[in-house]
Amino acid sequence: MPSPDEHGSCGLWIVGVGPGRMEYMTGRAIDAISRAEYVIGNDSYLEPIRSLLAGKTVIPSSMGKEVERATKAIDLAKFHRVAIVSGGDAGVYGMAGIVLEVLEHSGAEIPVEVVPGVTAANAGASLVGSPLSGDFATISLSDLLTPLEVIEKRLDAVFSVGIPVVIYNPRSHGRPHNFALAVEHARKYYPATVPVAVIKTALREGQADPVITTLGAIESVIEEIDMHTMVIIGGNESRIWRMGKNVKGIITPRGYHHKYVY
Amino acid sequence: MPSPDEHGSCGLWIVGVGPGRMEYMTGRAIDAISRAEYVIGNDSYLEPIRSLLAGKTVIPSSMGKEVERATKAIDLAKFHRVAIVSGGDAGVYGMAGIVLEVLEHSGAEIPVEVVPGVTAANAGASLVGSPLSGDFATISLSDLLTPLEVIEKRLDAVFSVGIPVVIYNPRSHGRPHNFALAVEHARKYYPATVPVAVIKTALREGQADPVITTLGAIESVIEEIDMHTMVIIGGNESRIWRMGKNVKGIITPRGYHHKYVY
Repeated sequence: MPSPDEHGSCGLWIVGVGPGRMEYMTGRAIDAISRAEYVIGNDSYLEPIRSLLAGKTVIPSSMGKEVERATKAIDLAKFHRVAIVSGGDAGVYGMAGIVLEVLEHSGAEIPVEVVPGVTAANAGASLVGSPLSGDFATISLSDLLTPLEVIEKRLDAVFSVGIPVVIYNPRSHGRPHNFALAVEHARKYYPATVPVAVIKTALREGQADPVITTLGAIESVIEEIDMHTMVIIGGNESRIWRMGKNVKGIITPRGYHHKYVY
Repeated sequence: MPSPDEHGSCGLWIVGVGPGRMEYMTGRAIDAISRAEYVIGNDSYLEPIRSLLAGKTVIPSSMGKEVERATKAIDLAKFHRVAIVSGGDAGVYGMAGIVLEVLEHSGAEIPVEVVPGVTAANAGASLVGSPLSGDFATISLSDLLTPLEVIEKRLDAVFSVGIPVVIYNPRSHGRPHNFALAVEHARKYYPATVPVAVIKTALREGQADPVITTLGAIESVIEEIDMHTMVIIGGNESRIWRMGKNVKGIITPRGYHHKYVY
């Protein structure tokens, strides 16, 4: 894709700003936002990067107005340098898809660059050891855009082959029961000992200590799980990871123990 | 986990440096490497960050000596500040898992921090639109550490529920046929029109233009696929994405087209 850099005067950067704290942004993301004249995004993503926004026109937007936001960004980007901001990676449950869809539909041809970022999954995983060392899947429990029966089939499929799953949007007021449903599916395939990590607002302001538990004991922390929480359900090879006697996280070994003596 | 920062004089950072070019590193990763006295890693990851390494003891290591590398890092980290470097995110097919396993086994208790990075999957996806907008899976075709029949079952499971798959390690001299096998599994569930992206050395030196093709036409590019290539096989909702008349990439819509008129 042509990058806005090649033109200079106009274009669109779709920027993943990572989990939240500025030190977890890439240099490329900082650069894109610094060069933009207009910055569009949700307040919760803009607040931590406030220091980059001086002298720019900031267009805050709220959840659920993705198409409006995308249309506005594209209209502006025909004549200006515009950055549209997503948390994590813009291509993962972020703004990239809808912006590029709306762009295609508009028929406009403008320079556009998707700037990748550290996803919530990888940020969360980094706080609890190495639960995603090998193959893994990410599945959102939000049934706003995907029917619940499709979500359930996906959960079933990945649990059935034993790969770790990162659960996005695990539980909200609007759908308090989806997470319990996911746990039910996991229990069809896994013993109660499979480790589970509950990670709240990873690498953002207000980060809480992650909770390491098991599939068998998950009910004891279920009330703490909300939309700002990410849950990692280990796979059939995952296990609790300790330092000294203390439980520190989860490891999913990559089979080195079959190959090496250490 | 306690971070090496809290002690200062010793500890271990397991650092994901992203896809390769320094501008795609996070500030935290740059900071961790800058503070380290020892930096351990594969030459191909260290070369692009050479400018950070002045005055440090650099311990290059080659593929396949992961346990040795981990043991060395842990021994040094008892008395020094040590950064061990992985490409992409250290927790995804990277060094975090094996280092934490060896650490646990050693009984040592040292400050350790996993610094997340932009994965190869997200870097690659950013170059071809938004193929991973929703749920997705990453699966490696390397059967060095995972039996081929397990890999095949995993592919089957994720294709059967229609989610996009990022294929790591798609094809090498040692296993030229695994990718063809993956395609065979995909064809059991998908029509020939499902889009496929072939992305070589994304956001690294030597990056080639990504190839956008379909499951039906994949044979025409199969010879170009090697260990430095990542392949994204779209899901049952993925489609080719165009700007004007030109094919630019892949979009996996998140269902907005069911909800919105635009």
